[in-house]
Amino acid sequence: MNQKTGAVLVLSGPSGAGKSSLINKIINDIGPTYFSISTTTRPIRAGEEDGVHYHFVSEEVFSQDIEAEMFLEYAVVHGNHYGTSLGPVKKALKEGKLVIFDIDVQGHDAVQHRLGDITTSVFITTPTLLELKSRLKNRSTDSDEVIAKRLEMAKREVQRISEYDYLIVNDALEEAAEVLVSVAKAARMKIPTLQINEFIQMWEAQG
Amino acid sequence: MNQKTGAVLVLSGPSGAGKSSLINKIINDIGPTYFSISTTTRPIRAGEEDGVHYHFVSEEVFSQDIEAEMFLEYAVVHGNHYGTSLGPVKKALKEGKLVIFDIDVQGHDAVQHRLGDITTSVFITTPTLLELKSRLKNRSTDSDEVIAKRLEMAKREVQRISEYDYLIVNDALEEAAEVLVSVAKAARMKIPTLQINEFIQMWEAQG
Repeated sequence: MNQKTGAVLVLSGPSGAGKSSLINKIINDIGPTYFSISTTTRPIRAGEEDGVHYHFVSEEVFSQDIEAEMFLEYAVVHGNHYGTSLGPVKKALKEGKLVIFDIDVQGHDAVQHRLGDITTSVFITTPTLLELKSRLKNRSTDSDEVIAKRLEMAKREVQRISEYDYLIVNDALEEAAEVLVSVAKAARMKIPTLQINEFIQMWEAQG
Repeated sequence: MNQKTGAVLVLSGPSGAGKSSLINKIINDIGPTYFSISTTTRPIRAGEEDGVHYHFVSEEVFSQDIEAEMFLEYAVVHGNHYGTSLGPVKKALKEGKLVIFDIDVQGHDAVQHRLGDITTSVFITTPTLLELKSRLKNRSTDSDEVIAKRLEMAKREVQRISEYDYLIVNDALEEAAEVLVSVAKAARMKIPTLQINEFIQMWEAQG
């Protein structure tokens, strides 16, 4: 029974809090995972690859996918569409993988609604807003306008930390990674109600 | 913020499922802990020590403690009183320790009610009822009558697994211990709502 079921790990938090660095650091230490790749209509940026960072599609294709109910969740952020396709997630869960989502607070809402009983959620943030500002400026990938938008969004998202199971303050990467490994390993142990009922029947039958 | 708050880990499951062996195996790997020692009116058994396995008290003392509201929870099991004193738990939480409870389903209810937002709960069981029977018989510490009572209680408790955050099937001790370490480390990261509100204020103030 242990470690044989698929489960979901939702990671949210401001862009610049270090989610990607943390995931890359722990991905080989937490067993079989599927990292959910979002679909978006926003323009591809320098250094990004289609099918790796996002599936980049047109507004037209995105609208067709919405109508075909192919999304677990979708939302508009800064004027662009972002969505999570359901198909690959279902497949990964059947294979017993830990499905990792890097999504915003709205996306977490939707995943919680659809897959709540196998979902563990973690909010990752910088120690302070000031630190977030300085990280976003130092990485020099965003314009001042985009940084301002990110900071506004961060302020709104931070208000909803209590909707998450865990809060990780990414002050020191090593320490934060160690915490995330434990949370991810534990996340895999969350067992859907349906399987608990099966387990109880099986447990008693062999008595 | 990380790893600085006290938190609660509740372990439940049938006597004979290996809770004690598991705890002893992991206790040095999960950071500062306080193992809650229950108070009971049941007679002391061979090999048990007052203040280590239980605080053994008379029915009279137990009744006085109930009236003085000194218990976080208490219950009657197999005709004897069992309770958890609140004082040492509060002290350990203030010191930032992970407070571990080895209590039954009723006790879990009470802890959840009082300390729910910092509590992680784990149900530990054998793979089957048959296996539980055989372990109880092999350890030869209980009479047939006590074993029968334990099995009846186990059947009732197993029905309530879905009230727990995690289920660990103790089939192989090494594997189960590894899972419990992750769950215990993650448990420490659960942050009370009050502190989240403080964190949000502090986070924004430094921006």
